[in-house]
Amino acid sequence: MLGNLLTGFWSWLTKTAPEIRDIGAANGSVLIVPVGSVEQHGSHMPVGTDTILVSEVAALGAERVDDLPVLVAPPIWSGYSPHHLHFGGTLSLSFETALATLEDVVNTGLENGFDAVLLLNGHGGNTSLIGAAVSELGIDNTDVEVTGLTYFALAVSFVDEIRDSEPGGMAHGGEFETSLMLHLHEDLVGDDREAEPWNEPHEHGTNDLVDPGPLSVYRSFEEYSASGAIGEPDLASAEKGAEIFDRLGDELESVLRELSEQNRS
Amino acid sequence: MLGNLLTGFWSWLTKTAPEIRDIGAANGSVLIVPVGSVEQHGSHMPVGTDTILVSEVAALGAERVDDLPVLVAPPIWSGYSPHHLHFGGTLSLSFETALATLEDVVNTGLENGFDAVLLLNGHGGNTSLIGAAVSELGIDNTDVEVTGLTYFALAVSFVDEIRDSEPGGMAHGGEFETSLMLHLHEDLVGDDREAEPWNEPHEHGTNDLVDPGPLSVYRSFEEYSASGAIGEPDLASAEKGAEIFDRLGDELESVLRELSEQNRS
Amino acid sequence: MLGNLLTGFWSWLTKTAPEIRDIGAANGSVLIVPVGSVEQHGSHMPVGTDTILVSEVAALGAERVDDLPVLVAPPIWSGYSPHHLHFGGTLSLSFETALATLEDVVNTGLENGFDAVLLLNGHGGNTSLIGAAVSELGIDNTDVEVTGLTYFALAVSFVDEIRDSEPGGMAHGGEFETSLMLHLHEDLVGDDREAEPWNEPHEHGTNDLVDPGPLSVYRSFEEYSASGAIGEPDLASAEKGAEIFDRLGDELESVLRELSEQNRS
Amino acid sequence: MLGNLLTGFWSWLTKTAPEIRDIGAANGSVLIVPVGSVEQHGSHMPVGTDTILVSEVAALGAERVDDLPVLVAPPIWSGYSPHHLHFGGTLSLSFETALATLEDVVNTGLENGFDAVLLLNGHGGNTSLIGAAVSELGIDNTDVEVTGLTYFALAVSFVDEIRDSEPGGMAHGGEFETSLMLHLHEDLVGDDREAEPWNEPHEHGTNDLVDPGPLSVYRSFEEYSASGAIGEPDLASAEKGAEIFDRLGDELESVLRELSEQNRS
Amino acid sequence: MLGNLLTGFWSWLTKTAPEIRDIGAANGSVLIVPVGSVEQHGSHMPVGTDTILVSEVAALGAERVDDLPVLVAPPIWSGYSPHHLHFGGTLSLSFETALATLEDVVNTGLENGFDAVLLLNGHGGNTSLIGAAVSELGIDNTDVEVTGLTYFALAVSFVDEIRDSEPGGMAHGGEFETSLMLHLHEDLVGDDREAEPWNEPHEHGTNDLVDPGPLSVYRSFEEYSASGAIGEPDLASAEKGAEIFDRLGDELESVLRELSEQNRS
Amino acid sequence: MLGNLLTGFWSWLTKTAPEIRDIGAANGSVLIVPVGSVEQHGSHMPVGTDTILVSEVAALGAERVDDLPVLVAPPIWSGYSPHHLHFGGTLSLSFETALATLEDVVNTGLENGFDAVLLLNGHGGNTSLIGAAVSELGIDNTDVEVTGLTYFALAVSFVDEIRDSEPGGMAHGGEFETSLMLHLHEDLVGDDREAEPWNEPHEHGTNDLVDPGPLSVYRSFEEYSASGAIGEPDLASAEKGAEIFDRLGDELESVLRELSEQNRS
Repeated sequence: MLGNLLTGFWSWLTKTAPEIRDIGAANGSVLIVPVGSVEQHGSHMPVGTDTILVSEVAALGAERVDDLPVLVAPPIWSGYSPHHLHFGGTLSLSFETALATLEDVVNTGLENGFDAVLLLNGHGGNTSLIGAAVSELGIDNTDVEVTGLTYFALAVSFVDEIRDSEPGGMAHGGEFETSLMLHLHEDLVGDDREAEPWNEPHEHGTNDLVDPGPLSVYRSFEEYSASGAIGEPDLASAEKGAEIFDRLGDELESVLRELSEQNRS
Repeated sequence: MLGNLLTGFWSWLTKTAPEIRDIGAANGSVLIVPVGSVEQHGSHMPVGTDTILVSEVAALGAERVDDLPVLVAPPIWSGYSPHHLHFGGTLSLSFETALATLEDVVNTGLENGFDAVLLLNGHGGNTSLIGAAVSELGIDNTDVEVTGLTYFALAVSFVDEIRDSEPGGMAHGGEFETSLMLHLHEDLVGDDREAEPWNEPHEHGTNDLVDPGPLSVYRSFEEYSASGAIGEPDLASAEKGAEIFDRLGDELESVLRELSEQNRS
Repeated sequence: MLGNLLTGFWSWLTKTAPEIRDIGAANGSVLIVPVGSVEQHGSHMPVGTDTILVSEVAALGAERVDDLPVLVAPPIWSGYSPHHLHFGGTLSLSFETALATLEDVVNTGLENGFDAVLLLNGHGGNTSLIGAAVSELGIDNTDVEVTGLTYFALAVSFVDEIRDSEPGGMAHGGEFETSLMLHLHEDLVGDDREAEPWNEPHEHGTNDLVDPGPLSVYRSFEEYSASGAIGEPDLASAEKGAEIFDRLGDELESVLRELSEQNRS
Repeated sequence: MLGNLLTGFWSWLTKTAPEIRDIGAANGSVLIVPVGSVEQHGSHMPVGTDTILVSEVAALGAERVDDLPVLVAPPIWSGYSPHHLHFGGTLSLSFETALATLEDVVNTGLENGFDAVLLLNGHGGNTSLIGAAVSELGIDNTDVEVTGLTYFALAVSFVDEIRDSEPGGMAHGGEFETSLMLHLHEDLVGDDREAEPWNEPHEHGTNDLVDPGPLSVYRSFEEYSASGAIGEPDLASAEKGAEIFDRLGDELESVLRELSEQNRS
Repeated sequence: MLGNLLTGFWSWLTKTAPEIRDIGAANGSVLIVPVGSVEQHGSHMPVGTDTILVSEVAALGAERVDDLPVLVAPPIWSGYSPHHLHFGGTLSLSFETALATLEDVVNTGLENGFDAVLLLNGHGGNTSLIGAAVSELGIDNTDVEVTGLTYFALAVSFVDEIRDSEPGGMAHGGEFETSLMLHLHEDLVGDDREAEPWNEPHEHGTNDLVDPGPLSVYRSFEEYSASGAIGEPDLASAEKGAEIFDRLGDELESVLRELSEQNRS
Repeated sequence: MLGNLLTGFWSWLTKTAPEIRDIGAANGSVLIVPVGSVEQHGSHMPVGTDTILVSEVAALGAERVDDLPVLVAPPIWSGYSPHHLHFGGTLSLSFETALATLEDVVNTGLENGFDAVLLLNGHGGNTSLIGAAVSELGIDNTDVEVTGLTYFALAVSFVDEIRDSEPGGMAHGGEFETSLMLHLHEDLVGDDREAEPWNEPHEHGTNDLVDPGPLSVYRSFEEYSASGAIGEPDLASAEKGAEIFDRLGDELESVLRELSEQNRS
C-alpha cells in the first residue's frame, strides 16, 4: 500500500556507504532532508500524515531530477508538536532537541560531500525550527548552500486555481492535506471527516496552510477544534490531490535544479 | 535628539514596582516586548537601527491605545545576527541564548499579571526566534495569550502604495528602513548611502523585507553586499517614512485593541 | 521488497489518534520503541542495516503477541555512531541529543496510557544510550514499567547452536547480521563480502556482538577495518538467518508477555 | 529628563559599523559593558535604578577619558534578580542565560579589535555572574585583558567620609542609591521613602552595599523588607549624590587609564 | 583504620604538579580514574561502600604494577544513584552532570600526557555512564587509548569458585560486597545484616552483580527492598573477601599491563 | 600521615544511611559541604592543597561544635581551575559542570532533612561558583538556610596580627597556605619553596588571598609566575599555621553555632 513512498523513504537506508559517498562527491550534489511530524490529524487522517506527505513530495522531487546527484535522507519524523499532545497519538521533541537533531543529521550527512542541502518541511509547527536550523547550519558549513522550505508554501502561487474552500478550509486535516492523501494513499483516509471551521479571532492571524497572516499566535489545538481537524475535508478529492501533487513537483523541481546548478564548482 | 523614543524605551525602567503591578493587574492588560538587534547597517545607518525602529513602533502603538492597560518592556537589543559579524559593530547572541532570554524576560514580566503578550520584532534574522519563543511561552503560560509579530510584515498590505523601488529595494538599510529613520531621527542617517542591489540567485528566495519567498537561504551578509547595505536607500525620504510610520501605527493599534479586548475576563 | 517490514514500521504512523489512544488505554499495554542507527556496514550491507533489522524484530515480536495490546512506535533511526563517520553514509546524533530524543519520544508516547515500554535496540553503539534512557525515563514515569533490551543479547543463549564462526565472526556486518539480512531482504546484500577478522588487542575486550568482554574500549572503526565490516559474512546464509530470527521471536515473545502480564492492574 | 544618560546609553547604538571598528582598532582601546538589572527598588525608586545608575557611571567614566579610545556598549539591563520577583516589576534571566548573554555580547563586541574589556556592574545580585563571566571570557580571549568591577565597590575607599548612616543604611534603595538618583534624575525619586532597617541575623553576613561580610546568605527579598527597600533613604540628598558620583568618576577614570595604558602594543 | 586506602586515594592529591607531569610523560603511562557512588547500602554497610571498594581495587591495581608509570586520580565519589534517594544518605548527580564531570576530569588529567586511561567503576548504576564517557572521551582524544571497566565484571570468570549463594545473593550489599568490606575494613560492617532476597520478576532481567541478564529494568530501590540491601550478606566472610580481592588484583593487573604495553611509542 | 583529615573526610562516607538520616532530622541540623580544587601549587606544595586545607578546616569546625547536629559531606575536590592547567597536575571542571555538581550534591544531601547548609570553599577560583550556587540553591530550597563562605575570608579580621609578609605575600602557595600545611601535614611541604612576588599591574586589583581589591582580572597563571607559586612561602612556619588554624576554628565555630541556632524550629 505504501509503494511510491518507499522510493523516497528507503533510498538512503538501503544504499551502502560507498554508494552514498559517490553521490555526495558528484558535482552539484544536493541532500534533501524531509522533516515531518507524528501528530493527531483528527479522526479521518493518520498521525503520520505530515511525515508521509513530505516523504512523498521529497521522493517526487528526487524523481523529477533523477539526472542530477540528489539524495533523500530518511525522513525525520520526530518534529515539534507540543500543541497536539492533548489528542493522543502525538510523538514530539522539545524545540531544543528537535533543533539539535536537525543539526546533527545534516552535519553528519554533509560529511559525504554534498554541495547543497534542502530541509524540506511538512509541518506548520516546524517552521521556526527549520528557520533556526538553516541559520545554525549555514554558519557552520560555509562551503555548502544551506536552504529550507515548507512544501505547502510552494502551493501559494497556484492553489487558488484548485481550491473550492474559502480561506480557512485548507488547515489541519482540511481540503489540502486530505486531497493529497486521497491521491497518494486513499486507504489511509477515513470516511468520517469531522472538522471544525477555522476560527482565528485575530484579523492579522493565520487563515490556513497557504494563507498565513503576520501575527503568530500560540494555541493548544483543543482550543480550536474538538475533533482535532480544522478546515473542509469534505471538499477534498483525489483529483485535486493529483493536481496539487503534480504542481508541487513542478515547483520543487525548479528549486532543486537551481540548487544543483548554482552550486557546481 | 532621541526624544520620542524615550517614551517607549524608558516606560518600564522609570516606573516603580507598584505602578507596574497595577497595569499588569488591570483587565485586558497587554505587555509589548520589543526585540531588536545591534548589527551593521551599512555606512549610512547606525548599528542600532533595528532596535531604534522597533522601539519607536512599540512606543507609537502604546500611545495609540493609551486608553488601555498596555505597557512596553525595555527593548531586548541583543538579537540573533551571526551573519552580520563580518562588518563590525554587531553584538549578537547565539540562537539558544537569544531564545532563553526571550523566555526569561517574558516569563518574569508575566508575573505581574498581564493577560496577553506581544513579542514585537524589528529584525528579519529574529523571525524564527520569535516563532520559537511564541510556542515555548505559549506552552508554559496557558492562561495568557502569547503572540508575536515582525513589525514590517504589517506593511505588506499597504507598502506598494508608497514605495518607488522594485522588489529588492526595501532590503537591509534600503528604502523602507532609511525612510523611517529619516522621519524619526534624520541626524542618524549619513549622506553617503552606499548599497548593493538585491541579488538573490534563487527564484523562490526572498526579495526584500516585505516580499519574502518560500525558500529560506543562509548567507553570510558579505556575500550579498560590500557595503553592508542592500536596496535603494537613495529613494528614501522623510515623507515616505512619515506615511509608513503612520500606517504601521494604524495596523498595530488594531492588533493591540484586539489583544486587549479578546483577553478581558 | 520491504513487505514484512512495513507492518512494524508503519503501524503507528498509519493509525489515527483515537486508535492509538485505545491501545494505550487497554490493560497491560506495552509500547515498543525500536532504536536503530544509520551507519556504514561495509560494502555488502546497507547503511540502514541496524534500523531495518531492529524494525523487523520489533514487528515480529508484535505479531507473536497480537492477542495483547502492544504497539510499535516508528523506529528511531538516528542513533549514536560517531565511530563510523569516517566511511561515509553515517547519520549520527551526539550522545546528548540521542538521549534527549529517546526521552522525548517515549515521554510523549506514554501520554497515551501505556503500562510498560520496551526500548528495543539494534545497534551496539547505542547500548549505553539505552541504559541511560531507561534510568532517566524510569525516574520520571513511576507508574510505568520502563525497560530496555539490545535484541542480539537475546541470542546469547542459543546462538552457539547455529553459528559456524569462532568468536569474532559475528561482529559488524558479520555472520549474524548478514544471515538475518539474507533471510529478510536478500536483495539488500551485496556479493562482495569484504570483511576483516576481529582483532581486539585486549584479552578482556569485546569479541563479537554476542560475546562482549568486561573491558570497553573506544576505537574509531577505521582502526579495526579497512572495509568497514568485521567478522565472517561468508559463513552467513539465509537458513541460519531464518533460524536466528525465529529463535529471537521466541525470546522476545516471552519478554513481551511478561511485560504485559506483570503490568496489568 | 534623561539627558546625560543618553551619551552613554546610545553611544554604541547610534554609531555606524565603520565608526565602531575604528575605535576598536585604536591602540589601547577599551570596551565598557554596563550590566544592570530591572528589579523592584521599593516604592520610591524606579525598577530601572541599577541599569540607570550603572549607565550613568559608565558614561561618566567614558567622558573622563575622552582622550582615549573607549566605547560603552548598550547596557545589559537583563540581570539576575530571582530574589526580587515577589514584589513585581522585576525582569530577570536565569543565571545560566545571564552568563551566556554576557559571554555572547562581549565575544561579538571584541571582534572589533578592543584590547581590553571592563564589565561594569551595577547590581549586587550580579556579582558572581560578573566573576564567572570574567573567567570564562578570559579563557577564550587570551589576547584581551578581561576585567570586571561592581561600581559601588569603588566607593568603599571614600564613602565613610560622606555617609551619615550606620552600616546597613546604604542597602537596597537606601542612602547611597537614593542620593545618586536625586543627583542625576531627581524626578524619578518618590517622596514616600519607606524602607526597613537592615537586619542581617549573621554576624559574618553582609551589612550593606559597601560593607559586605565573608558569609553569603540567600534570602528572598520579602524576608528582609515589606516595602522592598532597605536602609536609610531619608538620609539621602542630591548633594551627597553629587559628591559620590564625582568620586566614583575619579576612581573609574583611574581604572580606565590603567586598562588602556597597560594594553597598548 | 583506612590505611591501605590512602595509597590509592591520596596518590594524586599529595603529589606536586611536576611529579604528576613526569608520570604522565613516561612511555606507556596509564591514568586510572576510580568512579564510585555515595548511596545507601542497607543498615550494615556504609554509604561510601562503592567509593571505598573501587578505591581499594584501584590502589591494589596500581600496587601490582608499580614498575609501570600508572597513576590513580582521586576517586570521583559523585555518581549516578537516583534510584537510592528514598533511603537517605545518598548524594547523586544527574546523568548529564555526572557525564560532564567524567569528561572534564579525564580531559584535564590527560593534559599531563598519559597514553591510556581506564575509567574504573564500582557502582552498577554507573555502567551506562562509563560507557557513554568512554565513547565521548575516545572521540575527543584520538591519541589516547580510552577504556572503561566495572570492577566486579572482572569477577565473573572466577566468582563461582568462591560464592556460596545462589544467583541473586551477590547483589546490593550482599555476599560479594560484604565479603570485600569485611576483608578490607571490618569495622565498617554492622552486625545486623538485614537484606531481602533478589526478586526480579523478569526471566531475562538481572540476577546479581555478576549475573546480569539482557533486559534492563528501572526500579526505584524501595520496590526491591525494605532494608535497602539485597542478597545474602550472612554468607559473607573476610576470607572470601580476601580471595575475591586477590583474584580481582590478578585480573586488573593483566588489564593494566596490556594497556601500558600496547600504548608505548 | 593524614590522620586528622580523616575525621572530616570520611565522616559521611563511613556512616550508614540511617545514621545520616538521623543527623539530618535533628533540630538545627547543618550540612557542611567542603569545596576544594586539584591544581598546581608550585613545586613545594601538593596539587591537593586546597582540598586538604578546606577538609581540615571543615573537620575542625565540626569538632568544635560536636554538641550540635552538624555533618560534613565528602569534599568536592573537582573545582574550577582553568587558569592553572598550564603547569600540569590540575583537574578542573567547566564552570557550568562545577555549578551543576554543587547543586546536585547539595540538593540530594538536603533530602536528609538538614535545616541549613554551608558551602565551605577553599579555592579563590571557586568564589563566583559558590556565590552562584548559593543563589540557585536558595531559590530551590525555600525552607533551608543556604550559605557560602570562602574559609580564608574568615582570616581577614585577624591575619594582620600574624603575618610577616607585606600584601601579596599571602597568595597562591605563599605564607598563609604554606604555614597551614606545615602545621597540618609538614611532610607534604617541599624544601625548595620557589615563588614569585605578587605583581598585580592594576591599582584596584587583588593583592593576596586576604586582601582582594574591587577589580577582578583574568590571567592565566603562567603570566604571573614561572614556578606556579606566588607570595612568600619562606616566611611560613608551623607555628603561624597553628595560630591561623586555631583562629579560623574560632570564627567558623561562631558561624556554625549561629546557623544551627537560627534555624531551629
